[in-house]
Amino acid sequence: MLDILRRIVQEVSSASDLNDALRVVVVRIREAMETEVCSVYLFDADSKRYVLMATEGLKQEAVGRVSLSSSQGLVGLVGARAEPINIDNAPSHPKFHFLSETGEDPFLSFLGVPIIHNKRLMGVLVVQQRDSRQFDEGEEAFLGTMSAQLAGVIAHAEATGNILELTPANTERKSTRFNGAPGAAGVGLGTGYVITPAADLISVVDKMAESIELELENFDRALIAARGEIRQLGAQLSNDLRPEEMALFDVYINMLDDNALGAEVTGRIREGHWAPGALRQVVMQYVGHFQLMEDVYLRERATDILDLGTRILAHLQGVSEDEPEEDEFPDDCILVSEELTPAMLGEVPTSKLRGLVSVKGSSNSHVAILARAMGIPTVMGVVDLPYAQLHGKDLIVDGYRGVLISNPNEEIREQYQEIYEEELALQEDLEVLRDEPAITLDGHRIPLWVNTGLLTDALRSLDRGAEGVGLYRTEVPFMMQDRFPSESEQQKIYRQQLEMFAPAPVTMRTLDIGGDKSLTYFPINEANPFLGWRGIRVTLDHPEIFLVQVRAMLKASEGLNNLRIMLPMISSVHEVDEALHLIYRAHAEVIEEGCDVDMPQVGVMIEVPSAVFQIRDLGLRVDFLSVGSNDLTQYLLAVDRNNPRVADLYQAFHPAVLSALKIIAEAAHEVGKPVSVCGELAGNPLGSVLLMAMGYDMLSMNATNLPKVKSVIRGINLEWAQRLLDQVMQIESAHVIAAMVQLALEKEGFGRIIGPASGRC
Amino acid sequence: MLDILRRIVQEVSSASDLNDALRVVVVRIREAMETEVCSVYLFDADSKRYVLMATEGLKQEAVGRVSLSSSQGLVGLVGARAEPINIDNAPSHPKFHFLSETGEDPFLSFLGVPIIHNKRLMGVLVVQQRDSRQFDEGEEAFLGTMSAQLAGVIAHAEATGNILELTPANTERKSTRFNGAPGAAGVGLGTGYVITPAADLISVVDKMAESIELELENFDRALIAARGEIRQLGAQLSNDLRPEEMALFDVYINMLDDNALGAEVTGRIREGHWAPGALRQVVMQYVGHFQLMEDVYLRERATDILDLGTRILAHLQGVSEDEPEEDEFPDDCILVSEELTPAMLGEVPTSKLRGLVSVKGSSNSHVAILARAMGIPTVMGVVDLPYAQLHGKDLIVDGYRGVLISNPNEEIREQYQEIYEEELALQEDLEVLRDEPAITLDGHRIPLWVNTGLLTDALRSLDRGAEGVGLYRTEVPFMMQDRFPSESEQQKIYRQQLEMFAPAPVTMRTLDIGGDKSLTYFPINEANPFLGWRGIRVTLDHPEIFLVQVRAMLKASEGLNNLRIMLPMISSVHEVDEALHLIYRAHAEVIEEGCDVDMPQVGVMIEVPSAVFQIRDLGLRVDFLSVGSNDLTQYLLAVDRNNPRVADLYQAFHPAVLSALKIIAEAAHEVGKPVSVCGELAGNPLGSVLLMAMGYDMLSMNATNLPKVKSVIRGINLEWAQRLLDQVMQIESAHVIAAMVQLALEKEGFGRIIGPASGRC
Repeated sequence: MLDILRRIVQEVSSASDLNDALRVVVVRIREAMETEVCSVYLFDADSKRYVLMATEGLKQEAVGRVSLSSSQGLVGLVGARAEPINIDNAPSHPKFHFLSETGEDPFLSFLGVPIIHNKRLMGVLVVQQRDSRQFDEGEEAFLGTMSAQLAGVIAHAEATGNILELTPANTERKSTRFNGAPGAAGVGLGTGYVITPAADLISVVDKMAESIELELENFDRALIAARGEIRQLGAQLSNDLRPEEMALFDVYINMLDDNALGAEVTGRIREGHWAPGALRQVVMQYVGHFQLMEDVYLRERATDILDLGTRILAHLQGVSEDEPEEDEFPDDCILVSEELTPAMLGEVPTSKLRGLVSVKGSSNSHVAILARAMGIPTVMGVVDLPYAQLHGKDLIVDGYRGVLISNPNEEIREQYQEIYEEELALQEDLEVLRDEPAITLDGHRIPLWVNTGLLTDALRSLDRGAEGVGLYRTEVPFMMQDRFPSESEQQKIYRQQLEMFAPAPVTMRTLDIGGDKSLTYFPINEANPFLGWRGIRVTLDHPEIFLVQVRAMLKASEGLNNLRIMLPMISSVHEVDEALHLIYRAHAEVIEEGCDVDMPQVGVMIEVPSAVFQIRDLGLRVDFLSVGSNDLTQYLLAVDRNNPRVADLYQAFHPAVLSALKIIAEAAHEVGKPVSVCGELAGNPLGSVLLMAMGYDMLSMNATNLPKVKSVIRGINLEWAQRLLDQVMQIESAHVIAAMVQLALEKEGFGRIIGPASGRC
Repeated sequence: MLDILRRIVQEVSSASDLNDALRVVVVRIREAMETEVCSVYLFDADSKRYVLMATEGLKQEAVGRVSLSSSQGLVGLVGARAEPINIDNAPSHPKFHFLSETGEDPFLSFLGVPIIHNKRLMGVLVVQQRDSRQFDEGEEAFLGTMSAQLAGVIAHAEATGNILELTPANTERKSTRFNGAPGAAGVGLGTGYVITPAADLISVVDKMAESIELELENFDRALIAARGEIRQLGAQLSNDLRPEEMALFDVYINMLDDNALGAEVTGRIREGHWAPGALRQVVMQYVGHFQLMEDVYLRERATDILDLGTRILAHLQGVSEDEPEEDEFPDDCILVSEELTPAMLGEVPTSKLRGLVSVKGSSNSHVAILARAMGIPTVMGVVDLPYAQLHGKDLIVDGYRGVLISNPNEEIREQYQEIYEEELALQEDLEVLRDEPAITLDGHRIPLWVNTGLLTDALRSLDRGAEGVGLYRTEVPFMMQDRFPSESEQQKIYRQQLEMFAPAPVTMRTLDIGGDKSLTYFPINEANPFLGWRGIRVTLDHPEIFLVQVRAMLKASEGLNNLRIMLPMISSVHEVDEALHLIYRAHAEVIEEGCDVDMPQVGVMIEVPSAVFQIRDLGLRVDFLSVGSNDLTQYLLAVDRNNPRVADLYQAFHPAVLSALKIIAEAAHEVGKPVSVCGELAGNPLGSVLLMAMGYDMLSMNATNLPKVKSVIRGINLEWAQRLLDQVMQIESAHVIAAMVQLALEKEGFGRIIGPASGRC
């Protein structure tokens, strides 16, 4: 049973489009359940009707033509009740609706189950049989299980299908929207450019050959080179391998023969495809063929074929000199890839870059950090994206909401163009605020600091009038290397940061790896990395890493004394005690080595929920507290916001989050310690108003948002903000809270500054 | 650089023991760094000295003989300071200590880095060179990176090594302790029996052949069968495959030839090994060989060889009839496996089963649920366990702490034997309490309910005098199937539970899958499953699953009306509203179908931290609240307790957890709603006292713990417990809190009941 389930799901997943997927569904389920009819009706939201989209057993002519209203027939009943209906004499049911086009009349037994994905009724899956017999419990449960698993696959095929239908030739363009995670704020409009990592066969895009002759030549050369390489590998290993193993090489060389795989690729090229595309098509067809085989051993041969294909591709990319040249990129380039890397970013001239889109990765990925520093609107983790088809397409990147829109219609395009232009104009207008303090109309002053990681960040921050660094992410330089940086290497990097801002304070967070931030040279594999070995947990287990880092920080601050050290992921007071002990030790050592450095201020990040209940005990041990509102929100709500299945549940304005934030501020002040926020909420104009009202002493944010927040704060009264806070603290819904704050600020005339998207939560 | 790192770590990981691992370390690092000497000094905690354990470049005779005190030499300095020392003229350093046995004097350059794992200094890694030159920054950082990664591997090899040294022949036995997660409470002493899943080659144990002749015969037969099978597979597919692909089969048939792989296995059998063990040894050697190859393509060939081996093993297990027979199991069997399955449990007669040990899995694994129901002490997730070597070994399973001890010495054995006997005696003594209420000396009555999942649970619970079911885990029957159970199947199962306890209330939690509880037929793959799609999040997205379940519950309660429905993983009020809407709808449908059922009480589980801040809003919507203290603790502390790297940070008596629990109880009573706890803390006698003092209205626990908790409650005053609570709420440390409560109860004379392990937190 399980095996059948797995095979059907796999086969459906590898179908090329929605129709193909549904064909597989009906054919395979009819086969597996040994029934006479299996059909899929999909619900069309526009017409509010169930359309017969695929059938095996009913008349094929009916497909796409026959439909039922949402309250019609047994299908309508299954959908309306969201429950299976299993009866032995369908025509006698009061709800039965006769559709002559389907040739349905002779079928008495009817079993229908709803297809539901993410709360949305997608359609109904039906099996039917001539005899009057009720399907048994096992059959009913099997069909329900199939439906629950297929719902996601069908939803995916539907999203992908949308885009396939909509070639630029279509006169009426229909926008398709893909949800990801915000990577870097801003809006970008432009033309998709899909970039493929070196020799990643699966993500090679389809293109027409400019010269078929040239493509054939290139492919021949690559084939010969790959064969030669395999022969050479064999020869090198002839001493290590037995003759039986060596025979493997012959098999693969034969597969690469002009008459085998080679011939098929050549055929495709002759049809007009470029060589890498033709190669991908042929190889993936073979792979699919093997993957469907019953035998585990043969299934795994798929990998061999893929290896061979990748090997040829590497040569193809080498000889064809198809690496993009600067003038190949469109002037309004939106770079799209399965997994964007910093190297890829480097290939496009910055002046041409309007946006970035990555299927994999999160807002903490290396490339997202870079994008924020460079100010390029970015969407990460767009898992459902058929990215290979976006080459040359019209795209809009909404880095505020983490949304990508393909084939935008005129209306959407204009809306976004307006936002884009307003942003530009706004930035210019706000530049005058650079040297003004963030002070409310009734005289309350709140320092605005910045979060940095790269040197670029620091430069932009100074430009925007930052008064200090509230969070310097030391893991960023660690992520740029292929080994731990040495003490003196770290010292140099930290010195730059400290010097740039001196005498303003720079808050350096000790190494915060783990979670979704990994070092290639120090891999951590865990079932739940966010609840695992990360932040201070790693560095307390490896004091040699912590001590080197703290010593480097201390030495770097000599003569400046503007260093503050901040400890991430504290969940217990004993972790603070241990860390303080190590910092004192490092300080003593550094002094002993002849450096003249003050003991820096030390603070704790409040991001683990347990810390919220221990503000007093933590505060008494350190000099300052700083709330990491992103992680705190994730843990309070038990939501990984990089996970698209639950990302909707991540709500920055969730009433529980606001309650926790209020408690933190009050408790910190009770023990007389300053407390700040360095998460995204601080850089959101809506959030900044509430945080100021709660009494936070400082807000730290990305340089991009600083002028906006400053502008809002300079235009309101603290008392007004406090009244607003009192009101929203009574509300149970995050959406309502965000809307209320949005409305209140719009009423005060800040509509233009906060924009339409700030209410996102 | 990264590639070298990866290769060295991989090679060290596959070394057979500690000495072997250290040899690889020194040889490979010397090679990679092109230095003249590389040595490892390990710190011996008993003698407090650094012992030279491996070297390449110094005299081999010195290995194991030369040692330094903890403050001696540059090695001692590296260890003491936990930082690298990198100097160009070692002999001139004041700390330099000359060891003539090593032939060390001509080496001027010295670079040493500490090896630290889990805060413990394991030793020092040193490279040296004849010339006077300082190693450069890159080299220093490389060695540090190597050391950080190797520390874990060396720690693992050390743990494994311990057990290898200690054959029963050794007169002085040294116990080895392995940490896992508690699976089922209790202590078990017995003899290890390693069970291998069908045809899992990697976990085949080493055994000596009873008859070499027989093993040879079996192996020949298996080899012939495997060859035949591959030929047959080839023939079946000859229409689908091209001739070049078909040639693959010939290669593998040749590999299986008597003169190739076959000959080597035969050789090992002649040396005395049983066939499956010999096969594993040879195949794994080949696999290791391939895995180390530079070329990705060749590395992946390792899988082919493993496939072939598994195929032979399947035949071997078929023909050799080596499936264990009942009388093969020792009478005091402790079943050990890489991944225990319920099927394996079924093979051993229950009367012989003293304990269970599984390398994989968590306390939520299917087998752990079963073990708790059956009352068999169980340890799960013992990731560092060299389990294949435990066959026939003396073992102790400590299911309270999640600890396995191999080769226990007399002292340990006696201690545990005593605990075991006391447990038995205690259980008998406590049986008299069966029909007595849980009431304190000063007249406070607190109902004690049970947590159930299987039918066995329910039977044992009635035996122990449970007054109701506080948590019936409906996912358990879902986990027993290979598809979603149908409505009527569910109805039957729920009816049994409800009938057994009627008229006492049964609290059914709606389907709680995701996290570490997965259904084979509804796979969920996520980066952070604990922060992902689980509990109510899944069922609200799939209302068809939720509605079927609720309808089944309602129908099952007809005529009994003792059903309570509980919603898991609630993080926002709107989830409660949605769920209530669906429950009302299901109720209306069931009434419409002619059932006569009251609307049941509905409650919310408090396990996501955000719920702690919304008790009022949640309480006003439902009839009762119930705290899931395990998940709540995990989220509050951001610790996945199944992850051995951070399991120590999971502290049930953490002051933040206690604060949250106190807030919950107070807030629930403010809105007049009853509140209970159904996590492990409720079944811990120490925890139960604190929870009662906080005002919880009911405690729900495993049947095993119920009599103990009842006995403690019947022996104390509520007022005494409240004073104790006030005291511990002032304390910052979880360990101190647990110790205080333990001590207080011991003073009251409950030492015997609470046992030595209850303070675990």
